[in-house]
Amino acid sequence: MMLPARGGPEPCGGNHGSGRDHSPARAMREPTAMTASPQPPSPQPPPSANPAATPARAAPPIRIAIIGTGTIAHTQHVPVIRAHAGFELVAGVNPTPVPWWAEATGGLKLFSSMDSLIRSGMSVDAVAICTPPATHYALAAQGLAAGWHVMLEKPPTPILSQAMDLHRLACAAGRTLMTSWHAACAPAIDPARQILASGGVRGMRVTWRENVRKWHPGADWFWKPGGHGVFDAGINALSIACAVMGEPLFVTGATLDIPAGAATPCTAQVRWATPSLPDGMEGIFDWTHRGIEVWDIAWTLGNGRRLLLSQGGGGLSLDGVAVTLRGTHEYECVYSRFERLVHDGASDIDYRPVALVEDILSAGQRRPADPSFRILP
Amino acid sequence: MMLPARGGPEPCGGNHGSGRDHSPARAMREPTAMTASPQPPSPQPPPSANPAATPARAAPPIRIAIIGTGTIAHTQHVPVIRAHAGFELVAGVNPTPVPWWAEATGGLKLFSSMDSLIRSGMSVDAVAICTPPATHYALAAQGLAAGWHVMLEKPPTPILSQAMDLHRLACAAGRTLMTSWHAACAPAIDPARQILASGGVRGMRVTWRENVRKWHPGADWFWKPGGHGVFDAGINALSIACAVMGEPLFVTGATLDIPAGAATPCTAQVRWATPSLPDGMEGIFDWTHRGIEVWDIAWTLGNGRRLLLSQGGGGLSLDGVAVTLRGTHEYECVYSRFERLVHDGASDIDYRPVALVEDILSAGQRRPADPSFRILP
Repeated sequence: MMLPARGGPEPCGGNHGSGRDHSPARAMREPTAMTASPQPPSPQPPPSANPAATPARAAPPIRIAIIGTGTIAHTQHVPVIRAHAGFELVAGVNPTPVPWWAEATGGLKLFSSMDSLIRSGMSVDAVAICTPPATHYALAAQGLAAGWHVMLEKPPTPILSQAMDLHRLACAAGRTLMTSWHAACAPAIDPARQILASGGVRGMRVTWRENVRKWHPGADWFWKPGGHGVFDAGINALSIACAVMGEPLFVTGATLDIPAGAATPCTAQVRWATPSLPDGMEGIFDWTHRGIEVWDIAWTLGNGRRLLLSQGGGGLSLDGVAVTLRGTHEYECVYSRFERLVHDGASDIDYRPVALVEDILSAGQRRPADPSFRILP
Repeated sequence: MMLPARGGPEPCGGNHGSGRDHSPARAMREPTAMTASPQPPSPQPPPSANPAATPARAAPPIRIAIIGTGTIAHTQHVPVIRAHAGFELVAGVNPTPVPWWAEATGGLKLFSSMDSLIRSGMSVDAVAICTPPATHYALAAQGLAAGWHVMLEKPPTPILSQAMDLHRLACAAGRTLMTSWHAACAPAIDPARQILASGGVRGMRVTWRENVRKWHPGADWFWKPGGHGVFDAGINALSIACAVMGEPLFVTGATLDIPAGAATPCTAQVRWATPSLPDGMEGIFDWTHRGIEVWDIAWTLGNGRRLLLSQGGGGLSLDGVAVTLRGTHEYECVYSRFERLVHDGASDIDYRPVALVEDILSAGQRRPADPSFRILP
């Protein structure tokens, strides 16, 4: 399409697939002091929001339905929505019965499909899509077509073509579409960005290790063609990198370890460059890990100091000295951002982390994983 | 970034990584009658433009330098620019001597690097970047920083993160950035789009077969990690699909045949869905082909009729009956589009075809190619 190169007006303008200079994280800090969740978020409901920081609300709450009632809906979306003054949870959708639903929601209606929710005629303003990623596109398109605002759990879509087309559909529908990227809401994000901006980056090492069986018991969709394997978790690190770094990452090499029977990697070693740094940036992503999770990104700054983001953004230290963080609960922050976007009639669509994953999966060299790791126990 | 969901103004707005509803091809038809080149273009210089169709030009010609003087620069860019009233070729850049340069350009200066061109202080308005794709990002960024407009040969970048960042840089620089996608300038594109829009699509089969040794003698960059292998050619088919089809393609499966010593496929079978069609769309991409090139896309229309785009867009038939095409020379059309964008202060950045390639390379199942095919003779 024709784009005004010199800053003219453009309806429903894009974000260069991104929005680095207007990163979602810029607007998502809430000046509240709450316990931060690790990342992926810990399976506890959040503390209730600090009333002093709750914005004055003239508009009625946004009536929202949760599509897909897996672990993340149970532990994060339902309790956060129910504690959030800007939202009213009105229904859920899941193809199979959900034992915890009635008690957790005060007996709200649970539909068996998006179709049946739409046909019910229930008054809904927005949906939060928390299903496996392969279903996101169709459900989001259906929600936008129904006139609803849409929040997409991470990753927004497994393939980029779908994210790019949802961007187009949201603009055409005039509805809010938001990619959640909860990790980019973690308390360390803002301070890390400020330190990196002033100190400059000489090197980076991402270490993202967790046990897939702990975090995704019984699931296998991420091992199938089109899945992201270990990058289903690792994309959180990439969303943080996009939120805090002043320059984009360009993959220069990757080794992908593919377990027997899987199409996607269980572990990966990645090297990146930036426009100003030809090397010195690397990552290890490991879903075969057995011990305590490691969700760290360490940077060497221009002056040689070492910045360590740990606990997936729940911790930050400079040369080993902890940086004091003004924490927010990640999903409280996600929903407050969604609330603002809906009221502002805006969208926030960032698919740079998906591009980073596809860059890696496209350019990576595959090899068989250690046979001691099996994708199903 | 915050996007106005309801159509408010947005500086240097984006294109959803794309621009399907405002496809470049919409604006790139010229009402001239010229011989169409096959696609990839045949190695003959184009006929000169029909003067009757040349727009009146008040502005002086755009002074342009060609960066990278390989086959495509020799056979297309240099002769087309020199025949185009909207441009003045002023220089070239290539790291090694170019035997044909002096005679083909009337003895224009050939610099050994972009740096030396910039340092020369020569008056340049724009650059056409025709180097191997891995170098595109840095050269385009350098050109934009020098204040020049930039045209990118296909593929614009090998990885999506680079294309997305160039989009951002072009907006920040207030300069025109254009992805060339010459195949989407082929004569069959407009009629094919109209027929597909009225008839609907029930199925599609892409057949893209050529001999890599004929089209890229001695080159090997496309076999390396981060290269696209056979999709260096196949991306032309994907750029045509993006230009003519009303719905996006979402890969649902792919088999990639990887030659010994290569990181990328020499042949590939791909299956796609669209939002309205779960199956019935497939493609075969083959760089091991020995006979006459096959650059075909066949569609089954909603009414059962068969639309065949052949010769990479140089031919079109409906149920075997040729559709009369008002041809344009692909690169004449590319440069006329670039001229308009520069004068309008606009950009045209479409990286949907790159996303389609990365979707395939990310989701595809790899297997060893037939050992009779070797990447080097």
